[in-house]
Amino acid sequence: MAVLRVSANSNPSATAGAIANGIRHQGLARIDVIGPRAVNQAVKAIAIARSYVAAGGIDLYCTPSFASIFVQDQGEEKTAIRFEIRSRHGMCGSAEGSDAVGMANT
Amino acid sequence: MAVLRVSANSNPSATAGAIANGIRHQGLARIDVIGPRAVNQAVKAIAIARSYVAAGGIDLYCTPSFASIFVQDQGEEKTAIRFEIRSRHGMCGSAEGSDAVGMANT
Repeated sequence: MAVLRVSANSNPSATAGAIANGIRHQGLARIDVIGPRAVNQAVKAIAIARSYVAAGGIDLYCTPSFASIFVQDQGEEKTAIRFEIRSRHGMCGSAEGSDAVGMANT
Repeated sequence: MAVLRVSANSNPSATAGAIANGIRHQGLARIDVIGPRAVNQAVKAIAIARSYVAAGGIDLYCTPSFASIFVQDQGEEKTAIRFEIRSRHGMCGSAEGSDAVGMANT
């Protein structure tokens, strides 16, 4: 699985590319982030990644949760937000359940 | 649909309760947020809401996207992050399958 680390200074578009890549090749990606600004960058990256993969008929979703991760630099455990990002394809028995997606309803 | 506004000072647990309520009664909830700290509070609220509804066998997921919203106080349009939050239950149903959409990838 693609496990990405996103910081407050990460470029959302670049992260989005990595997410899209993880989704296309492995069907999922994970992002661990610490701190409000890093969470914000991760969310923007996921929103952008959704548009990247939408052209291929893929609809991304994410499930945020809390996780303890060990931060090497600081030598301690910290509470991170973990985003598991998946494609709605494959969630249902038939592959089509998720194909009814991709409309912009704005 | 429950549309929630979350600010940098919102209490994630209280917001989580509102999300869980929206999911239980309407099957979905929406959060519009502006700014990194508000995004962070919203994500924490979604993570907490997942644990609230998990006891009932519901698994929440969210789809973040960009949205333009009009901010009354400031009299102008701003770019917000919009979280559409849904239960994975019903995603495969015929009626729900197509309803479980909401991505604005423009």
